[in-house]
Amino acid sequence: MTGLFDGTFARGGVAATVSDEAWLRALLEVEAALARAAARTGLVATTAADAVTRACADPAALDLATVVARAADAGNPVPPLVRVLQDAVGPRDAAAVHVGATSQDVLDTALVLLARRALAVVDADLAAAAELAARLAREHRDDPVMGRTLLQQALPTTVGLKAAGWLGGLDGVRVRLAEVVAALPVQYGGAVGTLAASRGSGVDLRAALAEELGLAVTAAPWHTVRLPIADLGGVLGAAAGVLATVAVDVVLLAQTEVGEAAEVAPGRGGSSAMAHKNNPVAAISARACARRAPGLVATLLAAMEQEHERAAGAWHSEWPTLTALLGTVGSAASWLAESLAVLRIDTPRMAATVAGAGNAGPARALTDAVPAPAGADVGEAGAQVDAVLTEHRRLTEGTPDD
Amino acid sequence: MTGLFDGTFARGGVAATVSDEAWLRALLEVEAALARAAARTGLVATTAADAVTRACADPAALDLATVVARAADAGNPVPPLVRVLQDAVGPRDAAAVHVGATSQDVLDTALVLLARRALAVVDADLAAAAELAARLAREHRDDPVMGRTLLQQALPTTVGLKAAGWLGGLDGVRVRLAEVVAALPVQYGGAVGTLAASRGSGVDLRAALAEELGLAVTAAPWHTVRLPIADLGGVLGAAAGVLATVAVDVVLLAQTEVGEAAEVAPGRGGSSAMAHKNNPVAAISARACARRAPGLVATLLAAMEQEHERAAGAWHSEWPTLTALLGTVGSAASWLAESLAVLRIDTPRMAATVAGAGNAGPARALTDAVPAPAGADVGEAGAQVDAVLTEHRRLTEGTPDD
Amino acid sequence: MTGLFDGTFARGGVAATVSDEAWLRALLEVEAALARAAARTGLVATTAADAVTRACADPAALDLATVVARAADAGNPVPPLVRVLQDAVGPRDAAAVHVGATSQDVLDTALVLLARRALAVVDADLAAAAELAARLAREHRDDPVMGRTLLQQALPTTVGLKAAGWLGGLDGVRVRLAEVVAALPVQYGGAVGTLAASRGSGVDLRAALAEELGLAVTAAPWHTVRLPIADLGGVLGAAAGVLATVAVDVVLLAQTEVGEAAEVAPGRGGSSAMAHKNNPVAAISARACARRAPGLVATLLAAMEQEHERAAGAWHSEWPTLTALLGTVGSAASWLAESLAVLRIDTPRMAATVAGAGNAGPARALTDAVPAPAGADVGEAGAQVDAVLTEHRRLTEGTPDD
Amino acid sequence: MTGLFDGTFARGGVAATVSDEAWLRALLEVEAALARAAARTGLVATTAADAVTRACADPAALDLATVVARAADAGNPVPPLVRVLQDAVGPRDAAAVHVGATSQDVLDTALVLLARRALAVVDADLAAAAELAARLAREHRDDPVMGRTLLQQALPTTVGLKAAGWLGGLDGVRVRLAEVVAALPVQYGGAVGTLAASRGSGVDLRAALAEELGLAVTAAPWHTVRLPIADLGGVLGAAAGVLATVAVDVVLLAQTEVGEAAEVAPGRGGSSAMAHKNNPVAAISARACARRAPGLVATLLAAMEQEHERAAGAWHSEWPTLTALLGTVGSAASWLAESLAVLRIDTPRMAATVAGAGNAGPARALTDAVPAPAGADVGEAGAQVDAVLTEHRRLTEGTPDD
Repeated sequence: MTGLFDGTFARGGVAATVSDEAWLRALLEVEAALARAAARTGLVATTAADAVTRACADPAALDLATVVARAADAGNPVPPLVRVLQDAVGPRDAAAVHVGATSQDVLDTALVLLARRALAVVDADLAAAAELAARLAREHRDDPVMGRTLLQQALPTTVGLKAAGWLGGLDGVRVRLAEVVAALPVQYGGAVGTLAASRGSGVDLRAALAEELGLAVTAAPWHTVRLPIADLGGVLGAAAGVLATVAVDVVLLAQTEVGEAAEVAPGRGGSSAMAHKNNPVAAISARACARRAPGLVATLLAAMEQEHERAAGAWHSEWPTLTALLGTVGSAASWLAESLAVLRIDTPRMAATVAGAGNAGPARALTDAVPAPAGADVGEAGAQVDAVLTEHRRLTEGTPDD
Repeated sequence: MTGLFDGTFARGGVAATVSDEAWLRALLEVEAALARAAARTGLVATTAADAVTRACADPAALDLATVVARAADAGNPVPPLVRVLQDAVGPRDAAAVHVGATSQDVLDTALVLLARRALAVVDADLAAAAELAARLAREHRDDPVMGRTLLQQALPTTVGLKAAGWLGGLDGVRVRLAEVVAALPVQYGGAVGTLAASRGSGVDLRAALAEELGLAVTAAPWHTVRLPIADLGGVLGAAAGVLATVAVDVVLLAQTEVGEAAEVAPGRGGSSAMAHKNNPVAAISARACARRAPGLVATLLAAMEQEHERAAGAWHSEWPTLTALLGTVGSAASWLAESLAVLRIDTPRMAATVAGAGNAGPARALTDAVPAPAGADVGEAGAQVDAVLTEHRRLTEGTPDD
Repeated sequence: MTGLFDGTFARGGVAATVSDEAWLRALLEVEAALARAAARTGLVATTAADAVTRACADPAALDLATVVARAADAGNPVPPLVRVLQDAVGPRDAAAVHVGATSQDVLDTALVLLARRALAVVDADLAAAAELAARLAREHRDDPVMGRTLLQQALPTTVGLKAAGWLGGLDGVRVRLAEVVAALPVQYGGAVGTLAASRGSGVDLRAALAEELGLAVTAAPWHTVRLPIADLGGVLGAAAGVLATVAVDVVLLAQTEVGEAAEVAPGRGGSSAMAHKNNPVAAISARACARRAPGLVATLLAAMEQEHERAAGAWHSEWPTLTALLGTVGSAASWLAESLAVLRIDTPRMAATVAGAGNAGPARALTDAVPAPAGADVGEAGAQVDAVLTEHRRLTEGTPDD
Repeated sequence: MTGLFDGTFARGGVAATVSDEAWLRALLEVEAALARAAARTGLVATTAADAVTRACADPAALDLATVVARAADAGNPVPPLVRVLQDAVGPRDAAAVHVGATSQDVLDTALVLLARRALAVVDADLAAAAELAARLAREHRDDPVMGRTLLQQALPTTVGLKAAGWLGGLDGVRVRLAEVVAALPVQYGGAVGTLAASRGSGVDLRAALAEELGLAVTAAPWHTVRLPIADLGGVLGAAAGVLATVAVDVVLLAQTEVGEAAEVAPGRGGSSAMAHKNNPVAAISARACARRAPGLVATLLAAMEQEHERAAGAWHSEWPTLTALLGTVGSAASWLAESLAVLRIDTPRMAATVAGAGNAGPARALTDAVPAPAGADVGEAGAQVDAVLTEHRRLTEGTPDD
């Protein structure tokens, strides 16, 4: 049975990228790349490396039940996986399996691959949400809407500027994500980081492995210096925060009493029996998914304190935590894109609210030291919308000086 | 009375940068810069802006008791501060105070200034710690020490590689800190972000304000899209994690049973009466300070969900949280620099442990698919140390292609 | 200068109970009680214990600057405090200071005293808030208000039931607080918990110390088994959650578009210039204070992993964290009591909203399998209000079977 | 495929109690009990209630795929489940399904049932661990072991007292767990808590439902006042902390350099190839599982701020979070019981360490104001062990006044 809550918390494409199968594929991919890198470095025969690559490409032929069964006793799944791979390729090529590596080398690198793949999906959903926000910003560039501070009506702004705020946040997250992904490093150091089992070719092998997998390379292993994990946690936490802030705006605009926006999705949120009710399910779900992130990030950060050459527990705690974090932030992104895709803006009602708020002149006086000229109700909202959209185009289309 | 625990948790230079006085100075600095920016933009007279600048430069002459007393009723300290400043400059120049701004513009920008100043101190302590780690890496480049995984003796590594790991982490944090600081943006949008009270010159004024303060500028306000706060939280959480992982290594090397390192600081940690005991107080304190970070980061990330044009509570919760986070991470950095400065490495005992572990050959077999050549006990430890040191030099000295 | 944000985050009476002065008083109180307990147990002369008690009662006469100055080097403030006390009582009575104790005995017990005192203030504010909620529940027992689910109007409920929900939560927290406070234990075990320095009278001395301070006693020290800290963290986290959920209801009822309730506090939240705006500052501030709690609780829980007989950092991290947690939850309670004290309910507008929602019959059908009889719009709201009020009376007045 | 990390993070019996199947069973159990309670209250015919009970008892006959498929659109799985149940019992008995309830009534009550079942397993593992700790305390009551503070050797204590500390913590958690479980309440209030759809029998039905399920009853619904969730979070966080502190002691005693204890589990942690290495896998895994708890608890506490009559996202975020929390704390308990079951204590080495520490007399002087009599090295360790064991017997065997 698919998970009872998966429709909510394993939304969109991200779930498949953080599944057990995805983890296993990533582990095998690392072992295969490691064999090829070892061949390139001259440590094993190319034919042997090819055998390993073939074995890794065919998980169905491997005794994975044994891997799963023995993972906990070994402390992690890599030792039994290595044995299963060695069995699969036979004694002649077994030496090409797991060359010079320690379990953490393979598991950390697999985690990085998994994260990269998940983040590609997250990024696609963020991009979709951003595109929808951009369209809202363009289409409603000058449509007035009441600005609300501390949940009190304050002064008018525009739908365009509101959407541009969302867009700026989503694009900002994407820029950060891209930087983190580009810097994701391979892990390779051997048992205690010295590369002692790599017959003098460890540094070269690490570089070759990084090249095989398209990852960055570090000057030394990061077995217990977990900056790449912190980078992932940080950017996912930031993404969750931006997704949540957009989602809460949608939820609040959709309040019955505000009624300035609604998710219009047939078969969702509403009811023939309860015609006046239309829950913004997508935005609510985005919020629910995003709210799981801060605690998970805290767990990852607390786990950075790792002892000597390999941590006795903190390292392990990263696996389910980062997996859950990727999944829930990806789900939030998917939901938010769904929400914005079906968001219907009620500009007449918005305009009526602004008009109904009456003489906003005195109100403005509170925060303005300089009296605003008549008619400039929304100030430079439009110019700011344009500026955000220009940045968005630069991000999505690229520019000569990019 | 200075705080009872300040010697531990408000260590080094960072405390002064996050004090109430520092907050107030930052707020005044923003108001002064705002007046000058308004003058440059032509919104107020230069003489009026000068009056504001002078008033802000002399906090002692301001009725700050009233500001403090009225801050809570106003929801934040800026409204009473504005009134006090207007009183100070007199009716003729009062219009040059707080031009077109909302409280959050000033408070957020002040927070950014405060954070930048605190991070400069944090960075200096990180740099000091890094320099000490670099020295250890150089001086003990090839000195053997037992590598320990899951707190079990595993295979030999070198003090150099261990210290290089610390160095790589500390330098990695510094690189990230520098990026975050360079991107810290000014906040300026007026009541609801439209710049409606800036008489058509808001975008220009924002740019001028950013220039006055040496901050980055954004295309739209970030009143409820809190990426700059997330960036600060993320990098401070990462810093805490790296500091903690170095500190725990020191604590573990200093264990009585390991005894391979000790903090040698007269008048601290030891006792004439208890000659055999020498608590590594600095490393322990670094760990204590660092452990406060993950929860505080989680609070900041959870606060990113902010409603409409200004959040009803989440925004406010950032102030004490970020202040505490800067203070505790800065203290951790200060303590770690102290710890490494007085760390005495017992290389003979380290060597004896390695020697005493006997025939490490069979052990290596576990993780090595390729048998290691005789004598290559620490593999490419030295080469990796050199690579980390090279990166360190590039970071600290700069290079042509920087 | 009082803290710039203290009006918001150090609200009400709790701040004074968690100040540095309060900490010092608590430490001295423990040392005094310890001397008396030692006298009662026959370990020191009563005259010596009296001397210690007198010295502890007069902090102004002690060289506390030295205590503060040396606390960090000693790892905590107790060793220098003991020395200062020994100096104060002179060589004849010095042996009556700190009898058989380790620093953690005194610091943990002081923390417990501090927490108890702070919780008494928190409880008083919770009680005040509960009383105000009870009054609302009574006075508006049957006044209709629209029930809102997922921030959408759903079906009518009553102000009485809404307030009864708040009341039940506040009373529930008070019951839990009382249980935690009643179980708060003394700490006394000596250096490693064996009572080896208590000359065979340690268990008796612990009991006497508990009696002196009105604390519970445990069968063994809890130096590294931190259940009392977890209890405090848990109940404070729960309190923050209940305070936040009441506060968010007030904020949402006070939304301009809802306008069914308002904080009416002259000189706060409103503005003569901005007549339509009236920020519910107290509720917003309660929410801000409460939101700092979950992260702090996580820090305390993460710190429960403590090594051997005394933790190298985790223990220390409790001090500022629990202090901040008590302060911020206490402030939230104080703010919420203020909010409810000035909350004006607009029952006509509430009734109009309910009436305006029109034919609620079909809507009810969605969730009801059983058609509701005509007129029973708010079902058994009243009966439930009465039940909550009855429980409230039982809690506040006591009953024969209490 | 079973999960790759399930052997580590879904350990022991708890996993089955928090699975999707367990969730579904719990939901059906609540619907069945609700029908019976409605029959007892006279709202539906007994025959109809029986039909519902039968349908709920046979999940295989229900179209659960549809439930899963439609859950997300509905916002939660209950609406499609109700429809499937109504289809299953046919039009005649459909009115006996979900009588007067709202989705949250069923989901919250199911969550409570799920938690109770999971906690029973957690408690059994805690009890097993406690029994093993008790045996250690008895068997090694007077065996000396070096006490270590701040990871430095301090003064001797006994294995008995160390184990008694663990025992006290585990028993303390069990007492708290029992209190939380005993107070777990049913949820029943209808759409907005008024019981408006229960035809005047809602309060009675709630009581009957509570009786059917053996749950406590509250005076009003707790739809947005989440104290039961806070109670669960608090006690699970406390449990994790105690499990972690015992686990870290085992890990530290098993350090190669300390070598005073070892997990002796054939086929785990050790290696024929690496004879000198014996990772305490169970303790390490307990620690890894426990470390996930604080962040999850923070998420639950942050989710307590719930809007009006049903929260728009915070409520939903509880489901995966509490499920994960129960699973990981249960796994930690299972691992710790495994660890203690195979823990071999090396008393001769412990004694040698104590003896080798030489003249401990001067050391004691540091913390002792009263000179310890000769020979009383471990003070009242034994008496304290006995006291803890007495409490343990009282807890496990019950006493007349229990």
